[in-house]
Amino acid sequence: MSTAKSERFLRACRGQPVDRTPVWLMRQAGRYLPEYRATRAQVPGFLDLCQNPELACEVTLQPLRRFDLDAAILFSDILTVPHAMGLELSFVDGEGPVFANPVRTTQDIQRLHQPDPEQELRYVMDAVRLIRHELAGRVPLIGFAGSPWTLACYMIEGRGSRDFQHAKTWLYSDPESLQQLLDRLVAALIGYLRAQAAAGAQALMLFDTWGGVLSTPAYRHFSLAPMQRVIAGLRASAEAAPLPIILFSKGSGNWLEAVAQSGADVVGLDWNTEIDQARERLGAKISVQGNLDPMALYGHPTLLRAEIERILTANGSRPGHIFNLGHGITPQTPISNVEILVETVHAWKNSHNEYGEY
Amino acid sequence: MSTAKSERFLRACRGQPVDRTPVWLMRQAGRYLPEYRATRAQVPGFLDLCQNPELACEVTLQPLRRFDLDAAILFSDILTVPHAMGLELSFVDGEGPVFANPVRTTQDIQRLHQPDPEQELRYVMDAVRLIRHELAGRVPLIGFAGSPWTLACYMIEGRGSRDFQHAKTWLYSDPESLQQLLDRLVAALIGYLRAQAAAGAQALMLFDTWGGVLSTPAYRHFSLAPMQRVIAGLRASAEAAPLPIILFSKGSGNWLEAVAQSGADVVGLDWNTEIDQARERLGAKISVQGNLDPMALYGHPTLLRAEIERILTANGSRPGHIFNLGHGITPQTPISNVEILVETVHAWKNSHNEYGEY
Repeated sequence: MSTAKSERFLRACRGQPVDRTPVWLMRQAGRYLPEYRATRAQVPGFLDLCQNPELACEVTLQPLRRFDLDAAILFSDILTVPHAMGLELSFVDGEGPVFANPVRTTQDIQRLHQPDPEQELRYVMDAVRLIRHELAGRVPLIGFAGSPWTLACYMIEGRGSRDFQHAKTWLYSDPESLQQLLDRLVAALIGYLRAQAAAGAQALMLFDTWGGVLSTPAYRHFSLAPMQRVIAGLRASAEAAPLPIILFSKGSGNWLEAVAQSGADVVGLDWNTEIDQARERLGAKISVQGNLDPMALYGHPTLLRAEIERILTANGSRPGHIFNLGHGITPQTPISNVEILVETVHAWKNSHNEYGEY
Repeated sequence: MSTAKSERFLRACRGQPVDRTPVWLMRQAGRYLPEYRATRAQVPGFLDLCQNPELACEVTLQPLRRFDLDAAILFSDILTVPHAMGLELSFVDGEGPVFANPVRTTQDIQRLHQPDPEQELRYVMDAVRLIRHELAGRVPLIGFAGSPWTLACYMIEGRGSRDFQHAKTWLYSDPESLQQLLDRLVAALIGYLRAQAAAGAQALMLFDTWGGVLSTPAYRHFSLAPMQRVIAGLRASAEAAPLPIILFSKGSGNWLEAVAQSGADVVGLDWNTEIDQARERLGAKISVQGNLDPMALYGHPTLLRAEIERILTANGSRPGHIFNLGHGITPQTPISNVEILVETVHAWKNSHNEYGEY
């Protein structure tokens, strides 16, 4: 059986057999590519790149010209949504994202603007439309957003954090008003992801980068439950209902049974989790995406290949595996090893397909 | 049944019933205490504090004067061992620990000095002796060291890191020579912890801060296996054999079944793990320590108490629980909430003891 390249990723999202394991890489359009750095140099700031649909389209397509990847992912940033809600995002060199107006009080929550995705975030929708046009059906386009809890972390801290002192002080002091912030984000994210679907995104991914900093009950309440509401909202919309939904909840190995209840079709796995054990805990209906340590791409090609094949072997004959990293690719990654990764994954003969043939 | 306060912690380490759950806090001697900051201000650098036995003793005892804690832990730093091996440690304001001579080649490994704990690390042993004398048997003293993998991470990176690019590049490029570095550390740590035992430490703890950044097979090979050898070396020594050994492997919730094979008597749990599930996976022979989110100490007293009681309830009637945080206490923690923590834990009537009484 041969699968059309344009279909591999979406079939795997739905747990259907494919000829080759599809592969894409989180942050595949990024600083490890010289052509990305050249495009990035054309604008003063990182946010300018996100807000320019032509340039966002260009960098989205760059990795697809180099590597035989099975999906494109919209080039953007999860913090465009809080920016559109009024927090004034900027990127400070050497420090990362900073909000001029962090959310620290219930008054701050009430002041939040509920964005219209085709107004304040129109640049994202224009990028989606342009990328879909340029891709011309060769591979599907993934749209994405941050999870409510992850966005709340950044919005409360005002920047990145090691221990999320402000966000957790709120959580352990006044959980009811924190819930109001999450409610606002749920509504904003449903609108944002529906609009991406309407603009042409063919799969939707939620990045729950900071769910893993919570205790189990706090994860269920403040990270998982709002994501369930986002996903239910998407399922209830005409535009987004047909799209596969991917949930990447970093550090969620302890809670896979809970993540299985998220409503997502695909669960992204970080590299702490063994794919075979994860699949047993998630159940047969859920596909998985992952889960190579991004740092394995700094290794010797022989050991890199062995690590990739270890993951493919652990998945075994189960359909519904999309190969990816366990987190984003990092800036000094050697391009030659990315080539090896894609080749190694595609050279792997899927035994579920072999069984299907004979 | 009433347990002597001096015995609570050691009995719980051994899984024996106690009248009240013993409690101590990782980094209990630290910046959240004004008296610590005053003592710290007497010396130019953090390392000077570690290297002065009188001051190290003073800060070790400070939290015991304020709170009804059931154990003292030596005030020191896990990086004193690499410092004694020749890496020249310093603490840079706002950046944390930095080694002047990081380990990047096999030649660097061969140049490492194998320290004599009563020579290069005599200041630690003198601190242990002095603290034991000053404690006068009121509560036991815990000695500690970093795990081989955790120390190797710092030694290779030369400083803290988010993704451990240098350490993992080595791991995925030349694992055999990385093993040589771990071998050196295993030998140094056995000697260091034996010497702490000989100097009077009454329990020994391994901090595996960075085991959780590895994949499952890499954790078993590069983090767990060297710790097993350290623990076996301690069990084989006259000084350390009778002491309970505590292993804190942060982010190891995915691998508790493996951690159960470490040889440690007590496993420290971070706050991602539910204590009841962890105990089932670890088995009845292993005690646990943990596992409150340190950030819960920033919350409202009512919610803090509820969170503490949730953990005590989850442990239920099982003996062998030492209450602690899931990671170190942080600098802005309100002291009043630490008081509430200790009182709440000690007010809890242990049902295993109740059953023992009737």
